Amino acid sequence: MEPTLRWVGDAQGHLALVDQTLLPSRQLVLEHRDLAGVIDSIKRLAVRGAPAIGVAAGFAVVIGVRERAPADAAAFQRVLDEVVDIVSAARPTAVNLAWAAERLRERGRREPTLDALLDEARAIHDEDVELCRAMGEVGADLIKPGFRVLTHCNAGRLATGGDGTALAVMFAAHARGTPFKVFADETRPLLQGSRLTALELSEAGIEVDVIVDSAAAGLIARGEVDLILTGADRVAANGDAANKVGTYGLSLAAKEHGVPMYIVAPASTFDLSVASGAEIPIEDRDPEEVLSILGHRIAAPGVGARNPAFDVTPAGHLAGLVTDRGLIHPITTERIKATLG
Amino acid sequence: MEPTLRWVGDAQGHLALVDQTLLPSRQLVLEHRDLAGVIDSIKRLAVRGAPAIGVAAGFAVVIGVRERAPADAAAFQRVLDEVVDIVSAARPTAVNLAWAAERLRERGRREPTLDALLDEARAIHDEDVELCRAMGEVGADLIKPGFRVLTHCNAGRLATGGDGTALAVMFAAHARGTPFKVFADETRPLLQGSRLTALELSEAGIEVDVIVDSAAAGLIARGEVDLILTGADRVAANGDAANKVGTYGLSLAAKEHGVPMYIVAPASTFDLSVASGAEIPIEDRDPEEVLSILGHRIAAPGVGARNPAFDVTPAGHLAGLVTDRGLIHPITTERIKATLG
Repeated sequence: MEPTLRWVGDAQGHLALVDQTLLPSRQLVLEHRDLAGVIDSIKRLAVRGAPAIGVAAGFAVVIGVRERAPADAAAFQRVLDEVVDIVSAARPTAVNLAWAAERLRERGRREPTLDALLDEARAIHDEDVELCRAMGEVGADLIKPGFRVLTHCNAGRLATGGDGTALAVMFAAHARGTPFKVFADETRPLLQGSRLTALELSEAGIEVDVIVDSAAAGLIARGEVDLILTGADRVAANGDAANKVGTYGLSLAAKEHGVPMYIVAPASTFDLSVASGAEIPIEDRDPEEVLSILGHRIAAPGVGARNPAFDVTPAGHLAGLVTDRGLIHPITTERIKATLG
Repeated sequence: MEPTLRWVGDAQGHLALVDQTLLPSRQLVLEHRDLAGVIDSIKRLAVRGAPAIGVAAGFAVVIGVRERAPADAAAFQRVLDEVVDIVSAARPTAVNLAWAAERLRERGRREPTLDALLDEARAIHDEDVELCRAMGEVGADLIKPGFRVLTHCNAGRLATGGDGTALAVMFAAHARGTPFKVFADETRPLLQGSRLTALELSEAGIEVDVIVDSAAAGLIARGEVDLILTGADRVAANGDAANKVGTYGLSLAAKEHGVPMYIVAPASTFDLSVASGAEIPIEDRDPEEVLSILGHRIAAPGVGARNPAFDVTPAGHLAGLVTDRGLIHPITTERIKATLG
């Protein structure tokens, strides 16, 4: 498969990314040379996953500043601020977007050149590869031989610049020779589980069964799940985690039946400025995503829908947090602060 | 809309039923004159909902005995037993199927004629209309003005011979002038919520928003749901209820957040021979229902799926049971026995 996203060429180059809305039936690589195109890809989830949209955000700032062609240093700063704000606002829940854009702003303040911006964006991408590797190593031992691991949405190679977050843990355990199988929630409305996670795992030779999202609680109740691993879009200072809608319901079943559930996320997904999950904004997306599937209308005309894209899982429902800087277990505000330095 | 199912003509007539797999985009009435056709419609969910398949089962026995044309009274009993067994085995979880078929067997023992069988099947249908009306009356006051009511799958006119179970309560409250709105879980894999429930409610002038199944827990956590009403496919002697997969997860969120949840079911859905939910068989359906939507493949080739069609909600998670014979609240084995006589 093509890489999820990569920068091609020098500062005059372009951002190439796989249009994930078409997978697995079609693999189309989009070549973005203007800011509007990247923002559109982020908004319509052609590129998605908190770390991946962080990486895309870095390159988006490069493209946005370049197309505005600032004539001098003052104009460069003004244009940079404008572009950073546009990129940060593309989606409200994932903190990586603003985190990456702010890194570009700081670098551009010190070094107001396009080359410096591209260097910073590339650094974010390179670091993400390393963060994924580190999360995989930190979490791999959570998967014991014979485990049946449940995951939700896609927290894999298609969600990051590297091997993923929750799926990086699985790839690392697989590389160590641990035998296990995975249940992938299909993840309505956009089916990232059946379209993307199942694809990644089966390509890697890891056994995977897709289930409808609402089947998870019953499987957990019947003792068919040993471990739950998901990613996150934003983790608050107390460990509450916003992730794809449905994660909260999994955590209720995990708590009820004593199945350990871990969120796997790099330091860049933590937002220590937010005390708890109650302060995390939840993106409401277009009702059409619910009323149609793959372009086919399901519901009768005139029927409405609500489409919250995320929900918040309280830290108290989680066994721990797997980060690139170590395992946080049990979760406390102090331990999070200490681990993330 | 055409009636969900009805018998047309005398004992030489046929069973007409709406093919629910095609709704809401197409309304096709199937005319069944042979047993294999009815069984196929039950298996592939062209007719579904515990009470409706009970009604269909009665007419299926008439059709099955007729096509085997027993020559004498002894042959009639043999043929009747054979047909009752075939019909009872069409699907494993809903108890109404066997309940209705057994009623036909008993009637045919006493009165071995096709006319008697048809009379009994018609009686089951007529009674179902009355049971739905009674459940509506018993439950209507649970819906207070301004309530936001959540339901799962379809427990309405398309699931019964009459006005439904959970939806009969809503239709009755609406008829009394109570203003309220409904969240309908879409109910993957077969989308009975978005295709059928949303259609029934919007045709009745009741405001309805569809949500993906996994969004329910988050809405409940944010205080956006006041009451949960669902149907059931089988209720055990202790009040544990098997219903469409996903109902159990709703009950966990209901319990966590103190939102009252009621199962609405007629006496025929209770199976007092089964002590608890652990003894109820859960139907595993074709994985293709999960891997495809509306005939379109979602997952990559080679990916597997698990497709349990039901799960079991423990009585302890429910505020009560709404039956045609009264409200059972709180739920105990003794109160169930007393109410159902």
